[in-house]
Amino acid sequence: MRQILATISLLTLGFLVMAASKDAAKDPASDTAEKLRNEVLVNGHAYSDLVELVKIGGRLSGSQNAALAVEWGKHKMESYGFDNVWLQPVTVPKWERGPLEQAMAILKKHKYNLRVTALGNSVGTPAGGVRAQVIEVHGLDEVTALGDQVKGKIIFYNRPMDPSKVNTFEAYGGGSDQRFAGPARAAKFGAVAVLVRSLTLRLDDHPHTGATHYDSDGTKIPAAALSTNDAERLSALLKKEPDLTVRLELSAKQLGTVASFNVIGELTGRDKPDEYVLVGGHLDSWDLAQGAQDDGAGIVQSIEALRAIRALGLHPRRSLRTVLFMSEEMGGLGGVEYAKQAKEKGEKHLAALESDNGGFTPLGFSVQGSDSALEHLRAWGKYLVPAHADLAIKGHGETDIEPLGDLGVTLFSFVPDSQRYFDYHHAETDTIEAVNPRELQLGASAMSVLAWLLAEQGL
Amino acid sequence: MRQILATISLLTLGFLVMAASKDAAKDPASDTAEKLRNEVLVNGHAYSDLVELVKIGGRLSGSQNAALAVEWGKHKMESYGFDNVWLQPVTVPKWERGPLEQAMAILKKHKYNLRVTALGNSVGTPAGGVRAQVIEVHGLDEVTALGDQVKGKIIFYNRPMDPSKVNTFEAYGGGSDQRFAGPARAAKFGAVAVLVRSLTLRLDDHPHTGATHYDSDGTKIPAAALSTNDAERLSALLKKEPDLTVRLELSAKQLGTVASFNVIGELTGRDKPDEYVLVGGHLDSWDLAQGAQDDGAGIVQSIEALRAIRALGLHPRRSLRTVLFMSEEMGGLGGVEYAKQAKEKGEKHLAALESDNGGFTPLGFSVQGSDSALEHLRAWGKYLVPAHADLAIKGHGETDIEPLGDLGVTLFSFVPDSQRYFDYHHAETDTIEAVNPRELQLGASAMSVLAWLLAEQGL
Repeated sequence: MRQILATISLLTLGFLVMAASKDAAKDPASDTAEKLRNEVLVNGHAYSDLVELVKIGGRLSGSQNAALAVEWGKHKMESYGFDNVWLQPVTVPKWERGPLEQAMAILKKHKYNLRVTALGNSVGTPAGGVRAQVIEVHGLDEVTALGDQVKGKIIFYNRPMDPSKVNTFEAYGGGSDQRFAGPARAAKFGAVAVLVRSLTLRLDDHPHTGATHYDSDGTKIPAAALSTNDAERLSALLKKEPDLTVRLELSAKQLGTVASFNVIGELTGRDKPDEYVLVGGHLDSWDLAQGAQDDGAGIVQSIEALRAIRALGLHPRRSLRTVLFMSEEMGGLGGVEYAKQAKEKGEKHLAALESDNGGFTPLGFSVQGSDSALEHLRAWGKYLVPAHADLAIKGHGETDIEPLGDLGVTLFSFVPDSQRYFDYHHAETDTIEAVNPRELQLGASAMSVLAWLLAEQGL
Repeated sequence: MRQILATISLLTLGFLVMAASKDAAKDPASDTAEKLRNEVLVNGHAYSDLVELVKIGGRLSGSQNAALAVEWGKHKMESYGFDNVWLQPVTVPKWERGPLEQAMAILKKHKYNLRVTALGNSVGTPAGGVRAQVIEVHGLDEVTALGDQVKGKIIFYNRPMDPSKVNTFEAYGGGSDQRFAGPARAAKFGAVAVLVRSLTLRLDDHPHTGATHYDSDGTKIPAAALSTNDAERLSALLKKEPDLTVRLELSAKQLGTVASFNVIGELTGRDKPDEYVLVGGHLDSWDLAQGAQDDGAGIVQSIEALRAIRALGLHPRRSLRTVLFMSEEMGGLGGVEYAKQAKEKGEKHLAALESDNGGFTPLGFSVQGSDSALEHLRAWGKYLVPAHADLAIKGHGETDIEPLGDLGVTLFSFVPDSQRYFDYHHAETDTIEAVNPRELQLGASAMSVLAWLLAEQGL
């Protein structure tokens, strides 16, 4: 790319921006949207906040790090001059993976170490591990069909994510039942443990964790994710030596429940202080890395959205709340508690917006609510197109705000580009290096504009 | 992001794809576009080809590595069964940075090493370097205004790229005159050397090179790029001690011209074999890294676009050519030579498409040509929207195909998301790690679809 191209691209891509500017030339909201965008892109704190947050390390729900993150979030919003900042107690489960997670394929003449990590909520193995023959399957129904043959075996779920799906969340959706419900199904038919192929489109050496769900009346068997490279290897080994065994050892355990918090920061509305527009993400993360994309990005974007509004001295009609939800990865309990209290107090929430799909270049937003809400979002596209965030589609809200949706609150989800998300999701690769400052900030600027429009203009 | 979200996002983002599918339900071109997309996403070679290409190392025009890349490109297209593959001779300049590039700020009590890299085409310094006081400026006009004061000094261009520009190419365009024309301007007024702030929005330690252009009748003075962190540091030091000096030593030199090649691969058209649709990128790169994004990405996408068409057994009406242009970074000589020979031979080119803005998630394409060509591109949006590549705007072609544009050929440019491009551009960070396989392939799939549409349906 030579120097001369710069001028060219200015002429080309500039069209989008010019088209938007022209439409909204005499519209004061267009001016405000531009100022918010510039505040976030030029003076933005989203990335530097994320650099601070990830220094705490992984923020597993119920952990000491999660408690540190709560303190960090409260202090951060106070430092930005939010009108009120407080902690909302919520009881969360405490689960630890402990020091030990290892697996080995044992063949007649060789042994191979397999890279594994315990699934969230998994029980551990007995000391010394479990050792059994392995049955490779590609779905839950296959386990049911195998019936008694499953007994005493390790079930190995190895259906890959479908690379033909352009939207990687769709590919994830096509594979995630193996992790979420696969162990319970295998336990039902007498399996002694489960290995699940990691949910990523990459072939690499990083196991991806994530919650599994046992049947409340079923046996709990240990379950681990296998890196995609080792899933391929184990599958190849099984073709050569079908009666090989795997020894799996996990030290994971449940430790009851502990007290934790959602963190809430508020900018009081000038005209309707008792009507709320919520912007949020989840503060807890998995423990394998820093949770930079999932969901550190959503956390700092949600803080930045309101910081920029405050920094410009804007006082929209309705109150704005940034909510840092706790325990999304472990059952979504923070979101449930927030909605419960909102209902009890009779708080009127106009809308809730969550960012929990990564801090990548924005595409736009989805909305769960009336057709009229979607029409509003579409009409606001002219303010969002300069940040490439004018996609306006129907869709369901994210986990933390779903319980508000059940109360009839209109839900918005931030929709960024999805191509890289599952390179990092729930894996040791989800570090600050996975986040690009410009992409993160562009998304935050779009969220700030939408939050301001909702609080100022309503639905 | 919990398991349950997958279903949700399927419902939301799926809308785009469904809308497109519905429009084109009974259109055979829609079926072909989907097959091409799947071929590239599921069986794609773009990323594995790039892994091979970057193993050669930087491919500086005129270098041994560039010659190896020519061989690689020829072999690669032959291995994919292209109908004809040949080398087109082109004479290119040979420039080397040599072993030495260092700079030091010398203050009364301290010395600071500054991270620098010679600009492309720069002359070297005398042995031992040049040492002089420094004048910091923010533009070329400031140098002209300073006039005689410039004499004997080192001019330090330190105008940053503007972070408020959402399109980073626009921000680049706003800063790049300093690098391209700054040294010539400073030389005109008697400066002894030039330092230029690197053209990136990041604050980091990586100097970004790129070509500078001397006036043909002017003095040539040594010129180097400074990392953005060190540009900030030097600026701060100058405020404290304005009469500090900098010593700059560069071993760069021009070594005349050498023989090189464009690499051309062809799929013969079934109906109009003498009409051509060209798809290309540039094979040369800077020498500081692997040129993975600039423009290894464009190279492997251009090969992949035709490979997928061949793999599906498609035989479009017109002939398709993949052209790997040489020497884009050093004057665009490969593109000039290609157009010259096309004109001499009376070859009819219907259109030329270049990818030279990185292999990031696609936005779409720009077109330089008639309004009717733009209308075609817009109408084809229904085939491109599933790959998020339906942006259709007017714009100028890229460097290598510009000379064809001067002959009246309609030019298309691949337009990907621009947020990360200048993190890597012309710097030691432009390695394979800068490229995401999914993003690269999604762009290649869109290019394949557009190339096929052009060759089959015409303009």
